[in-house]
Amino acid sequence: MRDISKDTRLCISLSARPTNIGTRFHNHLYELLDLDFVYKAFTTTDIAAAIGGVRALGIRGCSVSMPWKEDVIALVDEMTPSATAIESVNTIVNDDGRLIAYNTDFIAIRTLLDTHEVPRTSCAVLGAGGMAKACVAALTDAGFGPGTVVARNATSGPALAEQYGWAWVASPEELADGAAELVLNATPVGMAGGPAENDLPVGPELMEAARTVFDVVAFPSRTPLVRAAEAAGKPVISGAEVIALQAAEQFALYTGVRPTPEQVAEASRISRA
Amino acid sequence: MRDISKDTRLCISLSARPTNIGTRFHNHLYELLDLDFVYKAFTTTDIAAAIGGVRALGIRGCSVSMPWKEDVIALVDEMTPSATAIESVNTIVNDDGRLIAYNTDFIAIRTLLDTHEVPRTSCAVLGAGGMAKACVAALTDAGFGPGTVVARNATSGPALAEQYGWAWVASPEELADGAAELVLNATPVGMAGGPAENDLPVGPELMEAARTVFDVVAFPSRTPLVRAAEAAGKPVISGAEVIALQAAEQFALYTGVRPTPEQVAEASRISRA
Repeated sequence: MRDISKDTRLCISLSARPTNIGTRFHNHLYELLDLDFVYKAFTTTDIAAAIGGVRALGIRGCSVSMPWKEDVIALVDEMTPSATAIESVNTIVNDDGRLIAYNTDFIAIRTLLDTHEVPRTSCAVLGAGGMAKACVAALTDAGFGPGTVVARNATSGPALAEQYGWAWVASPEELADGAAELVLNATPVGMAGGPAENDLPVGPELMEAARTVFDVVAFPSRTPLVRAAEAAGKPVISGAEVIALQAAEQFALYTGVRPTPEQVAEASRISRA
Repeated sequence: MRDISKDTRLCISLSARPTNIGTRFHNHLYELLDLDFVYKAFTTTDIAAAIGGVRALGIRGCSVSMPWKEDVIALVDEMTPSATAIESVNTIVNDDGRLIAYNTDFIAIRTLLDTHEVPRTSCAVLGAGGMAKACVAALTDAGFGPGTVVARNATSGPALAEQYGWAWVASPEELADGAAELVLNATPVGMAGGPAENDLPVGPELMEAARTVFDVVAFPSRTPLVRAAEAAGKPVISGAEVIALQAAEQFALYTGVRPTPEQVAEASRISRA
């Protein structure tokens, strides 16, 4: 690593269980792009004091993970549209003591809908958690919908649907014919190490009827759903694209420098090795 | 520098005008001693939020400079005797969220009086600022005094003297015969770049009468006073010794590892190069 001086900018992450992934990702790109920055993961037992410290110490950027993505809303100075859209913050930029909040998951999902030129069809979002909310909001912002939220949870499912004027069904089998030309998976089904890592979140009929498949699960990069959709010849957007784009976005917000997709891919590979 | 991970401990400094000296000093020794630490200088416009951030982010150590050495007393959880003795903090150790305050200038001066086996004679401290206070307190703690504070300032001079039950005179010429067997300079006279960098803080008669000379001015390492005292064959304690010992003490408090005097000297040389 390059030497640290008084002028080196510090960026950090705050999460309940820090990993080395972000630390490696950002520091690798700082070195590659010759940027006078350093990144380190932190945790805290006092999120208000930690964010106050980010402001007071001039820490340039702060990535926010579970369980504080909503808590920090009251602690920042400005919410940008990406954070407002889903009432959730994953990125804070410190501009000379002014804390500006973003959600780069929303930005990445919203951007991918355009860059993949997804036709504005009917859409079904599977799941009702934070990523599902980011998907529904991004779809709405992109001119999709009202679509259908598909979620077993009879509290969070209807709540998310109602917030955006969408329909809610408890399972994919209850979807009306033609209601899922875009199938978007925001459940953990297919996630490496999870209880359903080898499963598909939808049956063969839905896959058949879909015109586009979007899986926000990022690990593995080719989930069972992504592989099935590719085998069926459907256009696919993967969670690996979401995570790479949100990371590039966050990196650009902190440093003002946008890494290329190849640089992001290489940094991601190294950071997870 | 070694790679930074989520487990790397961060130590910082807080000062109105950060320099790279502490950053270089500590990072050099971390590397030399293979310690998983990183150090960086910061400034702030909100000392309370900055110290709150040190606690909440688990920043392991925080060096405090002007103008906050007194302000932080109200912000820490425990004052150790070195900080209490002079109501001034220059070192904060974060022990699992508990902030413990020290003053390593006091520790260094107090220690040097013993390691140099300075005879417990009469003593005169020149100056009435923060370092003069550390000297009077350390001398008192070591069994010296009551001595004499020599300071032109008719407010801070008598105030410091009164606090420790010492006498006060406005100039060295007013000292009683035999009142300055130990002469301790805590004024900026002789400091490199200062208005009196080539001057001596005492005249030849006082030098003649002194049994020991102690100069807390650290730059240059051999001040005019140190050179004059050496030329007169007097035992001398220099400010270079004070600054090296206080830095080693601070380093040991943060890391649990005490660098050797040679390692401290080399780190100091590199950090000021």
